[in-house]
Amino acid sequence: MKVSIVGITGYSGLELVKLLNNHKNVEIASIHATKEIGRRLSDLYPYLSGVCDLEIEAFDAESIMDKSDLVFFATPSGVASQLTKAFVEADFPVIDISGDHRLPAEIYKKWYKKTPASEEILNKFTYSLAEFSDIQGKKFISNPGCYATATELALAPLVKAKIIDLDSIIVDAKSGLTGAGKALSESSHFVNVHDNYVTYKLNKHQHIPEIVQELKEFDNNLDHIQFSTSLLPVNRGIMATCYVKLKEPLSESEIEKIYQDAYANKPFVRIQKDLPELHNVIGSNFTDIGFDYNQTTNVLTVIAVIDNLVKGAAGQAVQNLNLMMGWPEDLGFTKTPSYL
Amino acid sequence: MKVSIVGITGYSGLELVKLLNNHKNVEIASIHATKEIGRRLSDLYPYLSGVCDLEIEAFDAESIMDKSDLVFFATPSGVASQLTKAFVEADFPVIDISGDHRLPAEIYKKWYKKTPASEEILNKFTYSLAEFSDIQGKKFISNPGCYATATELALAPLVKAKIIDLDSIIVDAKSGLTGAGKALSESSHFVNVHDNYVTYKLNKHQHIPEIVQELKEFDNNLDHIQFSTSLLPVNRGIMATCYVKLKEPLSESEIEKIYQDAYANKPFVRIQKDLPELHNVIGSNFTDIGFDYNQTTNVLTVIAVIDNLVKGAAGQAVQNLNLMMGWPEDLGFTKTPSYL
Amino acid sequence: MKVSIVGITGYSGLELVKLLNNHKNVEIASIHATKEIGRRLSDLYPYLSGVCDLEIEAFDAESIMDKSDLVFFATPSGVASQLTKAFVEADFPVIDISGDHRLPAEIYKKWYKKTPASEEILNKFTYSLAEFSDIQGKKFISNPGCYATATELALAPLVKAKIIDLDSIIVDAKSGLTGAGKALSESSHFVNVHDNYVTYKLNKHQHIPEIVQELKEFDNNLDHIQFSTSLLPVNRGIMATCYVKLKEPLSESEIEKIYQDAYANKPFVRIQKDLPELHNVIGSNFTDIGFDYNQTTNVLTVIAVIDNLVKGAAGQAVQNLNLMMGWPEDLGFTKTPSYL
Amino acid sequence: MKVSIVGITGYSGLELVKLLNNHKNVEIASIHATKEIGRRLSDLYPYLSGVCDLEIEAFDAESIMDKSDLVFFATPSGVASQLTKAFVEADFPVIDISGDHRLPAEIYKKWYKKTPASEEILNKFTYSLAEFSDIQGKKFISNPGCYATATELALAPLVKAKIIDLDSIIVDAKSGLTGAGKALSESSHFVNVHDNYVTYKLNKHQHIPEIVQELKEFDNNLDHIQFSTSLLPVNRGIMATCYVKLKEPLSESEIEKIYQDAYANKPFVRIQKDLPELHNVIGSNFTDIGFDYNQTTNVLTVIAVIDNLVKGAAGQAVQNLNLMMGWPEDLGFTKTPSYL
Repeated sequence: MKVSIVGITGYSGLELVKLLNNHKNVEIASIHATKEIGRRLSDLYPYLSGVCDLEIEAFDAESIMDKSDLVFFATPSGVASQLTKAFVEADFPVIDISGDHRLPAEIYKKWYKKTPASEEILNKFTYSLAEFSDIQGKKFISNPGCYATATELALAPLVKAKIIDLDSIIVDAKSGLTGAGKALSESSHFVNVHDNYVTYKLNKHQHIPEIVQELKEFDNNLDHIQFSTSLLPVNRGIMATCYVKLKEPLSESEIEKIYQDAYANKPFVRIQKDLPELHNVIGSNFTDIGFDYNQTTNVLTVIAVIDNLVKGAAGQAVQNLNLMMGWPEDLGFTKTPSYL
Repeated sequence: MKVSIVGITGYSGLELVKLLNNHKNVEIASIHATKEIGRRLSDLYPYLSGVCDLEIEAFDAESIMDKSDLVFFATPSGVASQLTKAFVEADFPVIDISGDHRLPAEIYKKWYKKTPASEEILNKFTYSLAEFSDIQGKKFISNPGCYATATELALAPLVKAKIIDLDSIIVDAKSGLTGAGKALSESSHFVNVHDNYVTYKLNKHQHIPEIVQELKEFDNNLDHIQFSTSLLPVNRGIMATCYVKLKEPLSESEIEKIYQDAYANKPFVRIQKDLPELHNVIGSNFTDIGFDYNQTTNVLTVIAVIDNLVKGAAGQAVQNLNLMMGWPEDLGFTKTPSYL
Repeated sequence: MKVSIVGITGYSGLELVKLLNNHKNVEIASIHATKEIGRRLSDLYPYLSGVCDLEIEAFDAESIMDKSDLVFFATPSGVASQLTKAFVEADFPVIDISGDHRLPAEIYKKWYKKTPASEEILNKFTYSLAEFSDIQGKKFISNPGCYATATELALAPLVKAKIIDLDSIIVDAKSGLTGAGKALSESSHFVNVHDNYVTYKLNKHQHIPEIVQELKEFDNNLDHIQFSTSLLPVNRGIMATCYVKLKEPLSESEIEKIYQDAYANKPFVRIQKDLPELHNVIGSNFTDIGFDYNQTTNVLTVIAVIDNLVKGAAGQAVQNLNLMMGWPEDLGFTKTPSYL
Repeated sequence: MKVSIVGITGYSGLELVKLLNNHKNVEIASIHATKEIGRRLSDLYPYLSGVCDLEIEAFDAESIMDKSDLVFFATPSGVASQLTKAFVEADFPVIDISGDHRLPAEIYKKWYKKTPASEEILNKFTYSLAEFSDIQGKKFISNPGCYATATELALAPLVKAKIIDLDSIIVDAKSGLTGAGKALSESSHFVNVHDNYVTYKLNKHQHIPEIVQELKEFDNNLDHIQFSTSLLPVNRGIMATCYVKLKEPLSESEIEKIYQDAYANKPFVRIQKDLPELHNVIGSNFTDIGFDYNQTTNVLTVIAVIDNLVKGAAGQAVQNLNLMMGWPEDLGFTKTPSYL
């Protein structure tokens, strides 16, 4: 199978190269960006010397459809929404890693402050949190956001089991800097990040409506979550620390059973006895989940960790590709985290 | 005024040296530890060459009382509790930076798993969160813990104003590694901390009873808080992110007024318009507090940041010294944070 | 092919697990350590949950030879020297990643301050810097040190080409903390490493005699090198910055040709147009080499970067395994660096 | 004494604020920048709330001369050269922290690629490496560069003593990111710096001619040095590792005497028994120097460390101010390094 990648110079695009190079069913046919057209990817990124020496091409939907069987969009928000129409009309498969096909047009506009795709196009796309979706044979996939992936995987089993006070959900999520993208800004300057810890977009992060929308699938009474996002001085990794009040006290084993049942046969979710730390999933597509229940306060703390560029972006996109194609969910993945 | 420092080789002891070197009313008369007796401090810590060349002495209460007018304990928990009796009996002033004189004996034993000081000794000590205490002329001061300082300063005004649901308090606190002390352990090995983020002692941190005890002073109905502690891959700094539900919605200016009133004339607390980041207080005795109220969820997020070694330990101890002596609260402090 | 790993809980042992899990010709039959016998590796290292759930066994040469076809030693120095005799006598293949079989007994004793293996055993071992060795069919392989690998690959082509003043070689090498091993010490405590840069073992590093010995293979007139080692506040990666004076000025293209010729058909060495940075090889078995010649000073600066745990330890050990077996040199390697 | 600072929003300008706030003889009368005119410095930098609440003003030479007694330039290169004329003509004291008045016009143009000040203006300025200059009563001071300060202080005693082979000098210098300034660029993006180590401007760094020019003062036969500069993933600190061959072997005590004599009565240079590490000087104006002589290679390694923003910029500027005024050299300095 041949694929094209649009947005090759972003972190997700580069991570796709790494993952797909290792996937025996897939070959990268072309790579696209708006800058550096005609240059070899490995000239821009010497770490890819001898690994991916393709030349960067300008975006051209026709040419992509000629060369490939599927296109990944790994573009900043506001780009894919303007470019997927040609593919949808041609019934040509698309996996969009960006946020452009996750939300209804009005909500997208409000939170992203960009022009949305048409409702018609948006309706063709399926939001696929891989552990909870059924997309075999589907053609247009919207890949979840990084914070959203960690948070939804932590909370969905609890919401589904209807054991928590829906008004009590508070998520304190932290991300490494690759989650903030490659754009140059004061907030990504080394000196401002190193030895610092900064909470940003409090109550304004664009993944909030996506998380509410997805959790609502499991209990329609859920209307809002309290969600904070902070930047950790690391490159990769997200931890979503979720605090919820239980309707009734539960034992540790009852809670564990809810998670074990929810993720039985899911190769990329691991329920941990201890609270998971960031290191444990770096470089892998795993989501590690652990929890602790405090009888004194009736608060259940659930912690989920992912690698934001893998499970939170390119890895889940490949997992979704596998699911679309009916291949084993973990085909092509080197499962061992790089850890350190 | 002459002072002695017991526990000189810990982070708080070394920070005291830095602060007291700059304090015109104070001279360090002797420094004490259990190891490296007879060696010059600057031989062990070359950054102090020409700055503090005192020799380390073994602990000896009599000798300290001969040479000095006050003793600081900057020892690990379980040490000061065994050593303060001689000073108390001689009515010789003590400031204990460790946790050994903060809690009643039974509670101390439960959370610290160490032998407590006697109730008689404990009753002589005053817990002094500097912004809320009145200790002029007092002789035995128990200095607050680092996490406790940030959390109490963030929450006390709200608890006192009786505007929050006391059952709703959730604190997600993060600390740099100096907060975990100098002991060698897997959890302080560079490789295990760098690029990682680890939540530890969830619901078990020994500062929990101290925070509850102090906040109870402001509303006796408060019985518990949900409190989590994590290690940030930085050396210094604590951020306490506090989530509370309001009894009734309030405007931003009403909330700000509560804080401004609580900390009027307090030189080391700064109420910020934006959420404070760690950098802003590093190297200083400031506590910066900011907040954001979410009308959708009715959650008020309050963030307090401190330098754990300064306001969270040695700095507040010097501030308490100033208050004991009736000197200006900020005497001897270089107020500008080192920032970067 | 079945293999055993002795020293599983060290960084090199764990990295071997990662690499061999991905190697289709190899299966890990047993893992050994001196501690935590009977525990599952994934219980100690949750990042390996579902990836390597083998139980740790005590070392037992007989049992290893029953279960496996080859044994890797990934032990601290001073261990393998005491344990390889049984395997050598049984003609059972060994790859020793530690420094125990790299040097003659007297030199080993002087630099490592440990008891050496017997000269008889040492003579059976071949030191294999993979790009310059011919070990197909050999049974006892001594894997190069991490600093030594980077330095030798940077300098060997120049020494071999006899274009440099041998008395002029100065190497300023820097390593991430995993290079210093897992032992707890002041020098590996997070607070002492973070935001710091420390030069250690100047003129005393045990890789010095190994480098001299190997470079001497290319020009017997070489007797010494000036070599400094420092700790970078990162987990992985070594940069060896080498300064040499040329006998006669050379053009950039003449120098490049020397390197291109030396490493033609070597899949894991990449000659770069620009100076290589640490990121470019992290997570891979690549050695990236770049250089710059200063006509004013007649100094040629050559920079080589490797991932100390991969090319500097476990990766080169797998590469050596491939060479011993006559398999393709890069069999089983995911070639794309993790980069970030 | 009243002073103005031009270039207040750069790292050196901000560091000046910190240092001068603590200097009893000096008051900051005005602060200047090209952006954010009219805003309070503490609104832009909340860490300065209550510490420096001055408003930023546009540059205006007349106004500065009205309000102040001396002006500091802490501007990027290419700015001060265009602005100092008015002050020089009015005989109004200037300390320029930038590189604009360190080199003859032609050399400046070649290395900085900017328009130089006129030779007439340049001739009025004295380059003041504080430990070797005599500037009491001088009016126009050019403050040394950060790399240059560390390198010159390490090498000047050796060059002066005429004990080294001048053709053998190789300096491998490393700096934290504040040394690279605040401009946004790929090379200062957090993700590209963190966990990385990058050598840049090899043989092209603009401090090279400044170092050669200053060392030539001590031995006119010195014509060049080999000098490399790399970025450490830390905010502050420079280590200059200098390698030189001795003309004749010397004992450790002979070498130490050369340094002790050179820096007798210099309060900010500390000769260390062990090799100095970065931590030891952070937050202070100290230069720590240590060395090690290798008899086998005849290479003397000298390591100097400084805080690039203090001794390498704002601190040395204040030291130079003290010297100009005939005040004690260390007036206004809190001497204890922040260390961690």
